[in-house]
Amino acid sequence: MEDYSNVQVKSKLNVDFEGDVSSPLGFIAGGMHAGLRKQNNDFGWIFSTTEAQAAGVYTLNRFKAAPLIVTQESIAQNQTLQAIVVNSANANACTGEQGLKDAKDTQQWVAEQLKILPTNVGVASTGVIGEFLPMDKIYHGTQNVLKEQYNNSEYFNEAILTTDKCTKNLAVQVEIDGTTVTIGGTAKGSGMIHPNMATMLGFVTTDANIDGETLSQSLKMTIDDSFNMITVDGDTSTNDMVLCMANGQANHAPLTTEHPDWQEFQEAMHYVCQYLAKEIAKDGEGATKLVTAKVTGAVDDIDARKIAKSIVSSNLVKTAIHGEDANFGRIVAAMGYASDQFEPDDTYVSLCDTDVVHQGMSVAFDEVTMKAKLEQDDIVIEAKVGDGHGNAVAYGCDLTYDYVRINASYRT
Amino acid sequence: MEDYSNVQVKSKLNVDFEGDVSSPLGFIAGGMHAGLRKQNNDFGWIFSTTEAQAAGVYTLNRFKAAPLIVTQESIAQNQTLQAIVVNSANANACTGEQGLKDAKDTQQWVAEQLKILPTNVGVASTGVIGEFLPMDKIYHGTQNVLKEQYNNSEYFNEAILTTDKCTKNLAVQVEIDGTTVTIGGTAKGSGMIHPNMATMLGFVTTDANIDGETLSQSLKMTIDDSFNMITVDGDTSTNDMVLCMANGQANHAPLTTEHPDWQEFQEAMHYVCQYLAKEIAKDGEGATKLVTAKVTGAVDDIDARKIAKSIVSSNLVKTAIHGEDANFGRIVAAMGYASDQFEPDDTYVSLCDTDVVHQGMSVAFDEVTMKAKLEQDDIVIEAKVGDGHGNAVAYGCDLTYDYVRINASYRT
Repeated sequence: MEDYSNVQVKSKLNVDFEGDVSSPLGFIAGGMHAGLRKQNNDFGWIFSTTEAQAAGVYTLNRFKAAPLIVTQESIAQNQTLQAIVVNSANANACTGEQGLKDAKDTQQWVAEQLKILPTNVGVASTGVIGEFLPMDKIYHGTQNVLKEQYNNSEYFNEAILTTDKCTKNLAVQVEIDGTTVTIGGTAKGSGMIHPNMATMLGFVTTDANIDGETLSQSLKMTIDDSFNMITVDGDTSTNDMVLCMANGQANHAPLTTEHPDWQEFQEAMHYVCQYLAKEIAKDGEGATKLVTAKVTGAVDDIDARKIAKSIVSSNLVKTAIHGEDANFGRIVAAMGYASDQFEPDDTYVSLCDTDVVHQGMSVAFDEVTMKAKLEQDDIVIEAKVGDGHGNAVAYGCDLTYDYVRINASYRT
Repeated sequence: MEDYSNVQVKSKLNVDFEGDVSSPLGFIAGGMHAGLRKQNNDFGWIFSTTEAQAAGVYTLNRFKAAPLIVTQESIAQNQTLQAIVVNSANANACTGEQGLKDAKDTQQWVAEQLKILPTNVGVASTGVIGEFLPMDKIYHGTQNVLKEQYNNSEYFNEAILTTDKCTKNLAVQVEIDGTTVTIGGTAKGSGMIHPNMATMLGFVTTDANIDGETLSQSLKMTIDDSFNMITVDGDTSTNDMVLCMANGQANHAPLTTEHPDWQEFQEAMHYVCQYLAKEIAKDGEGATKLVTAKVTGAVDDIDARKIAKSIVSSNLVKTAIHGEDANFGRIVAAMGYASDQFEPDDTYVSLCDTDVVHQGMSVAFDEVTMKAKLEQDDIVIEAKVGDGHGNAVAYGCDLTYDYVRINASYRT
């Protein structure tokens, strides 16, 4: 079992780690092998039996992939979606006008197949940059969307993976107006992962009754503490996107930020996003350990996030943790170049619950005990940098031979 | 022989790749084994037979090592130095008051030994963070400074190394007022190397007649295009420092920015700093290839530098180059998250002289020819991002299994 102590949940959540985007009422997910990859599923879909309110957050990379542009424009039109299709193996990025046409054709084919509006179809791609989509295979996929034999959400969870070693999904339930509301999520990593989105696709579905504007607000409020707080390699991708659909089938009074149960809903959203983010970090390319950096006492949350992200982003920290070496000097170095808004003399650092830096100075510790702690898979670094109210938690992973191996030969 | 085509030298420079900090008139360098490392030289010195004008640039890391603080304060007092001592194996960083006292004691011992002012002694350390200097060994070193048998500049060049595989040094000569002026330089890398200084120590000496203020100006003008444009791993260290000494023994009219030969001197300084920076990048931990990113057409030099540094900093670019894989998608991704001041549609990228991106779109290229080019040790990426006047060149290296191996076990 995971340690969810970092996730602050005030009310009781019903969590189902077998659940996913198909768990909320009225959602179907599926996937198939359309031929983009050698044998694994490579084309997947999420469908809501009724039109859903929709929200998205998108990469800040200047080069935005074609499907991302098309989906962002579609959602902007009326904040609704009814289906999302995703392909792996090809990112449809750096593909110019042809890429945009391919993304729109995909959208159109799905719309015709499902008899819904093209702008109600979200499209997402992940994989190699700079190659055109093989449209014959994509067409084949679109003609099989929602076919009974492929409607298995596990097929969807698998179809979106690239170098991920495992699927990442869960569902949680929360009471709104005495009605059970379900939020489900499925995501993929696992390279080009860095704050401000990544080669990361996240899909969140819910049967909550909430309008697109409020849904967007809810999603954006969770992003800074979840998907934007993870890093695998510091590279922000062209295709990152988190899409959220809410179809209202739980049938309670509309959720607004004034609704008495708003906080419960928001916490559930946060739990889903943070869990998926953490799973992505843990399954980073070549990773053998999850690294969590918790920063407290910063001047504000923004500065705390900078420092926490810098620790988990540092190649030197990541390799030291891979080597199970308590090289705390690299931790303070990574903190020191992240921010100039704290005093080294007010800095305290602990590694796996052992103090290593006190008021900016190294502290003696027992190397044998520390070595044993560093052999664990879950490494926690805590840093207090003053008496401010800024806090943040960032997630990353170790840097390994396998990361180099995987990435030295990804394209070929 | 190196390719110096990136170094813009208008006038003819006399370059000596065997030269170093001891080449200018009146400079002596040496080194010895003081016992900090198992057997290699670990304590070195540079001495000027007359008091020299001095300038320095220092890490921006919030955690500054004790020797750096002491040296910075000493130079600030009257902009002079007569000696610099350096130890490797221990960074004297995160060592609090004790660390400052140790750095000052070192300075004092050297001053007594050489009968010069303590503030005329610069001190520098590189190595593990968070351990106190072994002051008995440091004392032993200080008592041997300038001893005849150790006065060999190669000993100095070796004494400052940590994980570097080779020494890095050169000297150039230039005519000022018809008099030959020599500038010598020695530097070390090779981990924690990133823009805005690094675990990088650079020492530049010259017999030019120039006051401390102008020398400082000259150094700062070259830094942004040399030492600040290299990266090995994105980690900016606590100990980085470039120190420059000018003893005036070449005996020409004082150099000012108005001097007719100022430009020649500045180009020579630039050549020395850029050569050393490039050597550091090439000898990055575990590196097998030098990666050069040239950016043109940016809105200004600052933006061009951001984009160029982002390319050579990307773990995904670095692993692709290690794998000799023309994964240009990672290059544009790294450019895209570095700046929002250029248009993807106006972007052109070439890899080893082969066009790979044209107006933001991928270009077909011959994989076999490209693969052969990528087998070379010297990989050049050129990117044009518009019609602006901003240009920059950044240097980095590939990310290899050896980088992980070296850094997974550096401290122990």
